[in-house]
Amino acid sequence: MRIAFIGLGNMGAPMARNLIKAGHQLNLFDLNKSVLAELAELGGQISSSPRDAAQHSELVITMLPAAAHVRGVYLSEDGVLAGVKAGTPVVDCSTIDPQTARDVAAAAAKQGVDLADAPVSGGTGGAAAGTLTFMVGASADLFATLQPVLAQMGRNIVHCGEVGTGQIAKICNNLLLGISMIGVSEAMALGNALGIDTKVLAGIINSSTGRCWSSDTYNPWPGIIETAPASRGYTGGFGAELMLKDLGLATEAARQAHQPVILGAVAQQLYQAMSLRGEGGKDFSAIVEGYRKPE
Amino acid sequence: MRIAFIGLGNMGAPMARNLIKAGHQLNLFDLNKSVLAELAELGGQISSSPRDAAQHSELVITMLPAAAHVRGVYLSEDGVLAGVKAGTPVVDCSTIDPQTARDVAAAAAKQGVDLADAPVSGGTGGAAAGTLTFMVGASADLFATLQPVLAQMGRNIVHCGEVGTGQIAKICNNLLLGISMIGVSEAMALGNALGIDTKVLAGIINSSTGRCWSSDTYNPWPGIIETAPASRGYTGGFGAELMLKDLGLATEAARQAHQPVILGAVAQQLYQAMSLRGEGGKDFSAIVEGYRKPE
Amino acid sequence: MRIAFIGLGNMGAPMARNLIKAGHQLNLFDLNKSVLAELAELGGQISSSPRDAAQHSELVITMLPAAAHVRGVYLSEDGVLAGVKAGTPVVDCSTIDPQTARDVAAAAAKQGVDLADAPVSGGTGGAAAGTLTFMVGASADLFATLQPVLAQMGRNIVHCGEVGTGQIAKICNNLLLGISMIGVSEAMALGNALGIDTKVLAGIINSSTGRCWSSDTYNPWPGIIETAPASRGYTGGFGAELMLKDLGLATEAARQAHQPVILGAVAQQLYQAMSLRGEGGKDFSAIVEGYRKPE
Amino acid sequence: MRIAFIGLGNMGAPMARNLIKAGHQLNLFDLNKSVLAELAELGGQISSSPRDAAQHSELVITMLPAAAHVRGVYLSEDGVLAGVKAGTPVVDCSTIDPQTARDVAAAAAKQGVDLADAPVSGGTGGAAAGTLTFMVGASADLFATLQPVLAQMGRNIVHCGEVGTGQIAKICNNLLLGISMIGVSEAMALGNALGIDTKVLAGIINSSTGRCWSSDTYNPWPGIIETAPASRGYTGGFGAELMLKDLGLATEAARQAHQPVILGAVAQQLYQAMSLRGEGGKDFSAIVEGYRKPE
Repeated sequence: MRIAFIGLGNMGAPMARNLIKAGHQLNLFDLNKSVLAELAELGGQISSSPRDAAQHSELVITMLPAAAHVRGVYLSEDGVLAGVKAGTPVVDCSTIDPQTARDVAAAAAKQGVDLADAPVSGGTGGAAAGTLTFMVGASADLFATLQPVLAQMGRNIVHCGEVGTGQIAKICNNLLLGISMIGVSEAMALGNALGIDTKVLAGIINSSTGRCWSSDTYNPWPGIIETAPASRGYTGGFGAELMLKDLGLATEAARQAHQPVILGAVAQQLYQAMSLRGEGGKDFSAIVEGYRKPE
Repeated sequence: MRIAFIGLGNMGAPMARNLIKAGHQLNLFDLNKSVLAELAELGGQISSSPRDAAQHSELVITMLPAAAHVRGVYLSEDGVLAGVKAGTPVVDCSTIDPQTARDVAAAAAKQGVDLADAPVSGGTGGAAAGTLTFMVGASADLFATLQPVLAQMGRNIVHCGEVGTGQIAKICNNLLLGISMIGVSEAMALGNALGIDTKVLAGIINSSTGRCWSSDTYNPWPGIIETAPASRGYTGGFGAELMLKDLGLATEAARQAHQPVILGAVAQQLYQAMSLRGEGGKDFSAIVEGYRKPE
Repeated sequence: MRIAFIGLGNMGAPMARNLIKAGHQLNLFDLNKSVLAELAELGGQISSSPRDAAQHSELVITMLPAAAHVRGVYLSEDGVLAGVKAGTPVVDCSTIDPQTARDVAAAAAKQGVDLADAPVSGGTGGAAAGTLTFMVGASADLFATLQPVLAQMGRNIVHCGEVGTGQIAKICNNLLLGISMIGVSEAMALGNALGIDTKVLAGIINSSTGRCWSSDTYNPWPGIIETAPASRGYTGGFGAELMLKDLGLATEAARQAHQPVILGAVAQQLYQAMSLRGEGGKDFSAIVEGYRKPE
Repeated sequence: MRIAFIGLGNMGAPMARNLIKAGHQLNLFDLNKSVLAELAELGGQISSSPRDAAQHSELVITMLPAAAHVRGVYLSEDGVLAGVKAGTPVVDCSTIDPQTARDVAAAAAKQGVDLADAPVSGGTGGAAAGTLTFMVGASADLFATLQPVLAQMGRNIVHCGEVGTGQIAKICNNLLLGISMIGVSEAMALGNALGIDTKVLAGIINSSTGRCWSSDTYNPWPGIIETAPASRGYTGGFGAELMLKDLGLATEAARQAHQPVILGAVAQQLYQAMSLRGEGGKDFSAIVEGYRKPE
């Protein structure tokens, strides 16, 4: 299949590699020449613009850092919509606000192009291993078309509803995740301060009503879960800056929808304070360090 | 076995009934004459005071509403410690602050009495069915002694460490629970406001990093989990007032330990606001109603 | 003086009226035909576009609802910058984010036009009475030019620094105001619940370290300040929706600057919850009602 | 006048000194022998117990660190109520919870003793200079009796209502103060991050709706107010630990009254986090440092 792949950063590049490995012919675009050169060696074709890439492809995939880039890549003169043929399936894997996803999809629909949003979770590790989760907002038909291709880059391909719902699912889940991680941090740090063994406490929580992914899989207290970032100095996981980005999307979407998210807003500010202290590059579970006496 | 059982309220009475059923001889004390009469009919003996009950028993169990009652029942002139023989195992199942638990245990230790704290979770339903979880703070020996008796009232008997750690485990777990429930409420209400199907959203969360007991077992959104209070008008679960009591214990213990619990404190205030609106009698998951447009 | 006045809503129309009264010739633009007709009767000229209005004026004033309108009015094909002559002073009185103010000013500067931001406080009452406060971000020269004209619409013309600082001053002040009002609400409601006379309490606060405008001038408790909205059913002041808008600008600017605003974010969410309950049309001091038992 | 003065710590000792200077004969009690010796040299009499001190005095004043000490000093065998004659006026100047104040007053009333609560503000500086503010909860008669004596230790003697209202006034004011100081910190730090001159910003706030004591008298940003602790390294003011104590009293009183204090609870936790970082000994306005990039 001829696939346009636009946006070859930390996530996009390994995703594109997996598609090349799976036998697809890729029309590539990015502003970074060196990553283009690298992927060209694997067999990809370099395009001169998003428009050029889209024009000669049966499917378009984009993976961009933020909403402004998505608008630019799709709607500018040299953009995807200027080149793509009516009927071509298009999927944007960026994590952006649901409104932009819907706006761009509406613009695409005007020229007979069906666009899906499909933000991912799983990080750069999942992108390399091809084990990402895709949360897909698309019509039933478009989802059926995209599913096999996405499955070559991920393990879990979830249909969330119409376009925009992929973004909604992601920001709602990550809103909860950002809160839960702080909740676990407060519970573990309080237990520690009061004198219970933290492994015993985690064990009780994990078999009780406090049970959650942030406790039983990704516990922020060092030494509880061998494979969690907390046990290797908070490196190599889901960075606090990325959590901040997602909480920013969630609270902004909430603002537009006139919907309160009280703990979510506090959580956002606490990660912001962590970032201000210069800790934003650490895994987000390092938020627990703000609850421990500095050494 | 001759067991003193002091405190026969909504929780204590069904627990005592299970011990009578299991064949023990109970020396009962409570200020409520009618519950005493009822349990006497099942074979229990009525005592004239905690001291009297403790004096003639091989094991003492107490189940009281708050720390002030625990101090009174143990330390007053007619209290347990005035009657209990050295070497008698004693267990307090009340949910109170860890410090009071330790203080009373220290007073007991002075006269050769080993005291455990063993707060429960599972509610009045679990007390009646004998399926409670006991979080036990006790020496290893005392835990071994108590375990078989507690197992006649509960299913899960967890050893948390030395005396006081039962309370610590319970308040830390419930601190996290109180936060998680609000986190799930915010995520579900935001998703609903933004236009995703709430069942789909819950499904995604439950197989992703937002996964938690408050979402996959006790989801606050009506119609997601058939057996959750949300699907029956927020009746018959864990009342918001009880959650408030536990969050009060958690934030007060945190204050004494000079330990911040930021989301925990906000959570406490949000349940408090719910209580002020006259909704404190509902299940605590009704906190989600504050995030929905009133009808 | 020939002045272009663009944006004739609840604030802009009375401001323009004051300039006409002061003897200026106004070139008017708005999408609302009826307000144009009304001001034309007072002597204003109707322009066909912002470009048209700007082209024939010695000074340009804009007063628009939000950043998107500002971008449109200035940067579109028929916009102010397409018509304005180099050297013409321009001032935008809208309340928007500082970044948009700076972006538009940078675009203006490219064609030799010096642009100031000058958001106001004082509400529609102040606009009609000509007693607004203008917080002006401008070069010293531009401020000197604008000052006499702004003084015909307001009483307090404050120079805050370079362009953008007018917006910064406004959102920082209103961030604090939004927090203080909730702080006073919590203090008054707590005092009332504990049994102190609320007038006595307000008196003590006002002569002590809790003293603030939200307490001594605009107290949210009914009956404390005769002239405050609280004493007339929370009507006719600064609406909660407007406070929400300003807190949204403040937290968004904070997000962009990587700056935490913890209480500010909670305050925003509490006004949001008030809005969700259908109370957003009331004066923002009605936030206190969430702290009182419903009747 | 023969006055019993019990509790001669950092506040009590200079207050007692002022009474001795004013010509009263003091019967002194404290556990600290050296402060007793020091005050005896100035002419005070050393008593052997609170009971002894009260027995031989026409007025009793107490100034103690916390509620537990107040209960002990008044209600123990050797306590004030064991010695004081019926009809003797009694005033407790400690800052404690209103409920304890009322409980002790009720015990006093049973033996014909009228007790007032009169917590102070003004710190050790105000105690030495005799410029304290007394917030007095007392019957009108008792207030009239106490007023001239309190005026020898303070400048502002405010009648707040019946016994307990002194404490209520103090904790409500300080609840608001704790919130306002954080609000000013967030506003100043945000303005600074966005690029406005902080002196200009403070000036605008102080003449606008954000105006408050925390901004115009005690601004937390260094260099704004010459006389504020911020301009001398956050030394020598009202320590964060004292603010924490008062916020603890406020949120605990709110909990007992079933009254939410949302921003108040967050404020308490933020000072708690400051204390955890080892900064609790600084003036409470140093809370602003958590909003600045560490150097």
